[in-house]
Amino acid sequence: MAACAFLSRLSPLLRERFGCKVRALSCAVTCSQLHKVEGPGGLTGKVDRFGGVTVNLAEVGLPADISENAFSSLLQDSLVQWKADGKMAVWLQVPISLSRCAAAAAAHGFTFHHAKSDHAMLALWMGEGESRLPGFATHQVGVAGAVVDESAGKVLVVQDKNKTKNAWKFPGGLSDPGENIGVTAVREVFEETGVRSEFRSLLSIRQQHQHPGAFGMSDMYIICRLSPLTYDINFCTHECLRCEWLHVGELTETSSTTPITSRVARLLLHGLEQGFDKIDLTMEELPAVYSGRFYQLYHRQLPAKS
Amino acid sequence: MAACAFLSRLSPLLRERFGCKVRALSCAVTCSQLHKVEGPGGLTGKVDRFGGVTVNLAEVGLPADISENAFSSLLQDSLVQWKADGKMAVWLQVPISLSRCAAAAAAHGFTFHHAKSDHAMLALWMGEGESRLPGFATHQVGVAGAVVDESAGKVLVVQDKNKTKNAWKFPGGLSDPGENIGVTAVREVFEETGVRSEFRSLLSIRQQHQHPGAFGMSDMYIICRLSPLTYDINFCTHECLRCEWLHVGELTETSSTTPITSRVARLLLHGLEQGFDKIDLTMEELPAVYSGRFYQLYHRQLPAKS
Repeated sequence: MAACAFLSRLSPLLRERFGCKVRALSCAVTCSQLHKVEGPGGLTGKVDRFGGVTVNLAEVGLPADISENAFSSLLQDSLVQWKADGKMAVWLQVPISLSRCAAAAAAHGFTFHHAKSDHAMLALWMGEGESRLPGFATHQVGVAGAVVDESAGKVLVVQDKNKTKNAWKFPGGLSDPGENIGVTAVREVFEETGVRSEFRSLLSIRQQHQHPGAFGMSDMYIICRLSPLTYDINFCTHECLRCEWLHVGELTETSSTTPITSRVARLLLHGLEQGFDKIDLTMEELPAVYSGRFYQLYHRQLPAKS
Repeated sequence: MAACAFLSRLSPLLRERFGCKVRALSCAVTCSQLHKVEGPGGLTGKVDRFGGVTVNLAEVGLPADISENAFSSLLQDSLVQWKADGKMAVWLQVPISLSRCAAAAAAHGFTFHHAKSDHAMLALWMGEGESRLPGFATHQVGVAGAVVDESAGKVLVVQDKNKTKNAWKFPGGLSDPGENIGVTAVREVFEETGVRSEFRSLLSIRQQHQHPGAFGMSDMYIICRLSPLTYDINFCTHECLRCEWLHVGELTETSSTTPITSRVARLLLHGLEQGFDKIDLTMEELPAVYSGRFYQLYHRQLPAKS
């Protein structure tokens, strides 16, 4: 925890400069309180309450064959106007077919914020000091399922086909966009092993940065406890070399496994012996205050209210 | 958990078609076992063990002013060759200054996979069926810190300046890229309140999709338990309206708070009364098997090995 201690010692001066203002623009492009502004002879943008302007190049009627130079001039005029108006930031949404406009914008200091499928989002910070624009998603989420057959004291494990060391691990994989943790666990277990199961609890979380396979980003790896609905194994031969119901005690003792699997096996053994309430984080679905959509909240089970 | 049940009922046929092959290309561009291939009169790429080709346009000696048409022809020749060679996918890393090449690639079916700062990564799936290429990061990570003064039975809470409802909540904010959960909690508490603290445990996790302010992506919101190192409040007037040490019992009863804060207040009260081991996930740092880098693992405390 050396980094925590270091950050705690940051001087009030540094805090004043970089600290408490960081989130000021944190919903720049998703804010619903937008209104349109048009620069004289420039681009039409939408202004948000944080002082940012968003321009979607798909919506401003640019000629499909506009040249980099012509777009550069147009952008230049708009930037002069936005600066005069005291705007803090400009967001530029660029359809992939107009990507040459991104090169033109780069010459004015814009950089990529993110890109998805058919468009890129560029941003330019025009306020004082370092950019206070919020970043894009930083983590992929991987989920594994420990399917426990309580009556037999066994757990479902696989050996990956593509790894050099044949270590037992719990079946799992990456969450699809918008997929809940428990759904990923159940899906991946079924895809890899053919065993159907249902979500019980969350057991452990690992955070790892610069994760291999995450394009330089971070990884959140979550292991869930599942209960089997079926027991017959029909494992995926593309992904797995072996798949077995293994005694939990055996999994705690073997060296043919990963440190995390071994640790979670110890948790499971403790749970089998003392009750799963000793190891579980339970899940509850609650409605979000603003959107009304449901989210999943995980924490230790609380005793019933008296 | 209706979705889990639904997925569990997927037919073996569907599983055969979409299921167990999904991760086959999951480290396409980070794999270290690459070798160069050059198409006749085409682009030079690196081949990975999953049958993908990666071309970095910054490294293949393109003229800086290459036209969209000229690049399109070059790419076309290479695609013919790669298809003939049975390649499964092509990754195209495009510097922002050569963005016009992204428009040309889009005409051949490429889409944006992601973009960062000065470059975009495009991808084209050439294998059979649906793309099996891995996605990019899907989650932002937000962290809040519940700083508990155990001797006084109080916890540090703030009211956001920019929200309409003045609800007490724990100070917090988004993790910076590569920042550990505990470090974010300590940093954000200090920035918002001036109170220095140290990480103790992880209390709860919320997963929410289509999160406002996350550019259409998902959010993982984590609340940590912290211990105070200092007690004087010097809160950030840009972000906060009020900041106080509030009795934990009072926070469990007030309606001026969010559902999650209220829930965590109940956890904290339970912890103050029965011991924090009843509510904590403890953290341990372990070395990654392959990279040797350290990762953080969170789970229920295990009894000491006998």
